[in-house]
Amino acid sequence: MPINTELTARLGIQHPILLAPMDTISGSRLVRAVSEAGGFGILGGGYGDRTRLETETAKLKGFAKPFGIGFITWSLAKQPELLDIALQARPHAVMLSFGDPAPFAPRIKAAGALLICQVQSEELAKQALDCGADILIAQGTEAGGHGASRTTIDIVPAIIDLAAGRVPVVAAGGLADGRGLAAMLMLGASGVLMGTRFYASVEADAAEQAKQLIRAARSGETVRGVVFDWSRKLMWPAPFTARSLVNDHLRRWSGREIELMQRADEIAVEYAAAKAAGNFDVAAVFAGESAGLIHDIAPAAEIVGRIVAEAEQSLLGRRNFFPSPLVGEGGSHR
Amino acid sequence: MPINTELTARLGIQHPILLAPMDTISGSRLVRAVSEAGGFGILGGGYGDRTRLETETAKLKGFAKPFGIGFITWSLAKQPELLDIALQARPHAVMLSFGDPAPFAPRIKAAGALLICQVQSEELAKQALDCGADILIAQGTEAGGHGASRTTIDIVPAIIDLAAGRVPVVAAGGLADGRGLAAMLMLGASGVLMGTRFYASVEADAAEQAKQLIRAARSGETVRGVVFDWSRKLMWPAPFTARSLVNDHLRRWSGREIELMQRADEIAVEYAAAKAAGNFDVAAVFAGESAGLIHDIAPAAEIVGRIVAEAEQSLLGRRNFFPSPLVGEGGSHR
Repeated sequence: MPINTELTARLGIQHPILLAPMDTISGSRLVRAVSEAGGFGILGGGYGDRTRLETETAKLKGFAKPFGIGFITWSLAKQPELLDIALQARPHAVMLSFGDPAPFAPRIKAAGALLICQVQSEELAKQALDCGADILIAQGTEAGGHGASRTTIDIVPAIIDLAAGRVPVVAAGGLADGRGLAAMLMLGASGVLMGTRFYASVEADAAEQAKQLIRAARSGETVRGVVFDWSRKLMWPAPFTARSLVNDHLRRWSGREIELMQRADEIAVEYAAAKAAGNFDVAAVFAGESAGLIHDIAPAAEIVGRIVAEAEQSLLGRRNFFPSPLVGEGGSHR
Repeated sequence: MPINTELTARLGIQHPILLAPMDTISGSRLVRAVSEAGGFGILGGGYGDRTRLETETAKLKGFAKPFGIGFITWSLAKQPELLDIALQARPHAVMLSFGDPAPFAPRIKAAGALLICQVQSEELAKQALDCGADILIAQGTEAGGHGASRTTIDIVPAIIDLAAGRVPVVAAGGLADGRGLAAMLMLGASGVLMGTRFYASVEADAAEQAKQLIRAARSGETVRGVVFDWSRKLMWPAPFTARSLVNDHLRRWSGREIELMQRADEIAVEYAAAKAAGNFDVAAVFAGESAGLIHDIAPAAEIVGRIVAEAEQSLLGRRNFFPSPLVGEGGSHR
């Protein structure tokens, strides 16, 4: 059964489940699979590879289901022309995260696309609303990849209270199943954005071994920090750090970040070689706390279906908290 | 309307809301108020002040509503005879947290009280279940006062999966309102334990100024660390640290914990004097992330009533996510 919220109405989708625009992992294949299943696929704009963006958006041209394209805002600012390529694909929405959306908001809205802004604090949420954001994503520190330090249970209600019903708020961070979706709907969110759950999907553009590592990870086996960014000489602006699975490289350099920075040239060569070789003892698998909830690699459509079925079961009362007959149920006063 | 869960059935209470046994803050007056309102008050056993425990338990003797008594387990181990004083008050349950429950579990169960264990990891949950815990509390890092590092959204489903229906799991950390209760019920928890929300209550045994500071705190204005424990020469075992409001003393010593430890004698005198004088620029107000959700100091009964009404609204409204007429609703096929 479809799960209706303000978000599904606004995006024209069946289920309030958004695919996080993970770098190169959320490619056109995964976007199509999530959107065809009734969710909302968002293509990862990555770090500015123009050829990849052209190729992937070309594969989405004429796609009949609603979809979006996401950018790392500070990275997009270095190549603002990438937004034109994105808009030519006629996405239903553009998602901006990690930077000031102001320089891009007018072009996005003029093109008829919705503006989705991911925020990690009240200040960022205010900035996004000032830019005309149509949808806010409140991202907790549990999220995989880049994010900040506030937890999902803290930041989601804070942003909902701040938005005060003006725009739908989507919860992100630590969520990978239907009970998480149901919980966030109860908290007042209009939907969820999930990354790690779809990383471990058949259609994700990622190494099979990385997907298997997510599947095998237990709850509590991820950490947030700068080791992997610094190891690839990728300096993110504060307050953003990245959450990943713990591996040998991370254990080696955690707590020795200054030395890592001093030896950056040397480490970057080592790191790039390991990444090219698919050596995940060194290379990062960016994943969120929800890795502990993920036990398989499944087709995205099956993942969406499962989340919806679980959420439906929770919401329709697998557990009945009230004595029946229920008062206030349409027409069921007895 | 009462909110029925396995937890309310097991404790014989109306609403699945537990008062955290905050040190000296959760005294008999607050316990009575929460239990009389249909929740479950848990007296704070504190750090081993025998006289206080005798006085406070005496005030609970013969109290007709279900209530509990909570201990800091590693502290209780230094004075195990305090458990006898507690059991003489005939509590419905004893809550143990922060240490090995094994030495105390048999006496608690032999006395006919339920054993509630608060856990912060799967390992601690397994240990608690092995000791015969009747109820588990899964505590996220968002919690005020002592706790560990895993987030509520991560640890709650992890413990629910581990318990696999054998015992009810209660969620703690970052929760202060009815939407939080409803969200945790959807996640599969059987109830919530709240500390900070009841700290800012009329009946809490705390300085008015501390309560006002919680009321005024915004989301994101708490941190977890060791500064206050070390400032009072109170060494907690790993992995436990304490979350508090940010104040001058915390800002001064954060990042300088080694120096703080080296100057422990001197700082402890300063700190004790400030605490005695009610100077909260120095003295700690232990509070959780949920401080941002708290905007008043209210009678505990009003707080319970409000949480229940909000949760009820969320839970009964959950069916609005589906198109009506609903399929699967008792007798409402149309």
